[in-house]
Amino acid sequence: MRHFEEQLDELRKRLLEMSGLVESAIYRSVQSLVEKDEQQAQQVLQNESRINQMEIDIDELATQLLALEQPVATDLRFITAATKINNDLERMGDLAVNIAERALSLMHEPLVKPLIDIPHMASLVEGMVRKVLDAFVRKDSELARSVLLSDDAVDELRDSIYGELISYMQRDPATVRQSVDLMFVARNLERIADHATNIAEDVLFLVEGVDVRHHAEARSAPK
Amino acid sequence: MRHFEEQLDELRKRLLEMSGLVESAIYRSVQSLVEKDEQQAQQVLQNESRINQMEIDIDELATQLLALEQPVATDLRFITAATKINNDLERMGDLAVNIAERALSLMHEPLVKPLIDIPHMASLVEGMVRKVLDAFVRKDSELARSVLLSDDAVDELRDSIYGELISYMQRDPATVRQSVDLMFVARNLERIADHATNIAEDVLFLVEGVDVRHHAEARSAPK
Repeated sequence: MRHFEEQLDELRKRLLEMSGLVESAIYRSVQSLVEKDEQQAQQVLQNESRINQMEIDIDELATQLLALEQPVATDLRFITAATKINNDLERMGDLAVNIAERALSLMHEPLVKPLIDIPHMASLVEGMVRKVLDAFVRKDSELARSVLLSDDAVDELRDSIYGELISYMQRDPATVRQSVDLMFVARNLERIADHATNIAEDVLFLVEGVDVRHHAEARSAPK
Repeated sequence: MRHFEEQLDELRKRLLEMSGLVESAIYRSVQSLVEKDEQQAQQVLQNESRINQMEIDIDELATQLLALEQPVATDLRFITAATKINNDLERMGDLAVNIAERALSLMHEPLVKPLIDIPHMASLVEGMVRKVLDAFVRKDSELARSVLLSDDAVDELRDSIYGELISYMQRDPATVRQSVDLMFVARNLERIADHATNIAEDVLFLVEGVDVRHHAEARSAPK
């Protein structure tokens, strides 16, 4: 029993480690775009394989725990949540790589106007990722709910970014290529937020046993 | 024991039913775009909640099987694969909804040129989805591998679609809005293909015990 608790702790620890890497990948990919800093983007590309390997290792640990320890109730729920969170984190890592690639493609081109909304959206998204992992570790359902609420703000920002970029492209064909790159950056940030939302739903299910997926009304009500 | 086998069968059956709904959502969303058929798009929007409910039900069944039956080895692997496939299918359903929404937004606008590459990409992607579920049910690793190979063809088509749409926007600002919609359609199709690829990887792991995620060399080699 003692041994099992230790392994659950190990699983939690590794997820946190992985989320640390993913958070820094997101941060660096956006910094690279904003500061035109090629090194930051390269770092993100280099760290991808480490994140991928962590996903495989965590999956293996979780499967072992399921097979050997035959957990029930809360522990079972914790392990299945960990598997889902693991998968979401890995995909966030991929999305940070996509952003880094767009940053590299925009590196040597003067931007039409200074980036304001994208860094704003990025810091909102980074906050969601940080909060949701905190919520998972502390089993804090209030914090998880606050992440669900941020998702709407992210969607609004995305719409305003899209609108602005579309009007640039309509006014000046020379901005098409960079505007498309920036649209995909916004899209990738939005998808990172979606994954954070998925994790928040898993945390709520873990802590409260409420399945809030696809149920808008249950998301805001405090139980 | 008998009872457990029946429940595994039930799980398999429900996944097939769900994939049927998802396949038809993908097909309809693209048809709606190509044929300017509003009803097909509306159908996709209406079926979304059914797919969402199926995801929740399948998840519950899988969790029950894990908790009550304490499966080991192959059965455990089957159930965890089923959970992942379930999640991928639901996300494919969401992506079909996105395509249907773009189709509605383009419904009353004359298109710059007839759609050729997008229907082509769509039929490739639909084939991947169909094949990968077949591969899962028949435990056919060769078929799963063929899905992994199609993913590259999908990526190439996406690149050529992007390139063409970018050049439209550069030549004629009036095409910006519809080109952006069509880029997102291509992007959504590509993501559906990515989910099919995820499922193919799960099938390979289930059948051969080989983890091919992030290992390009293992994907093509027949074991």
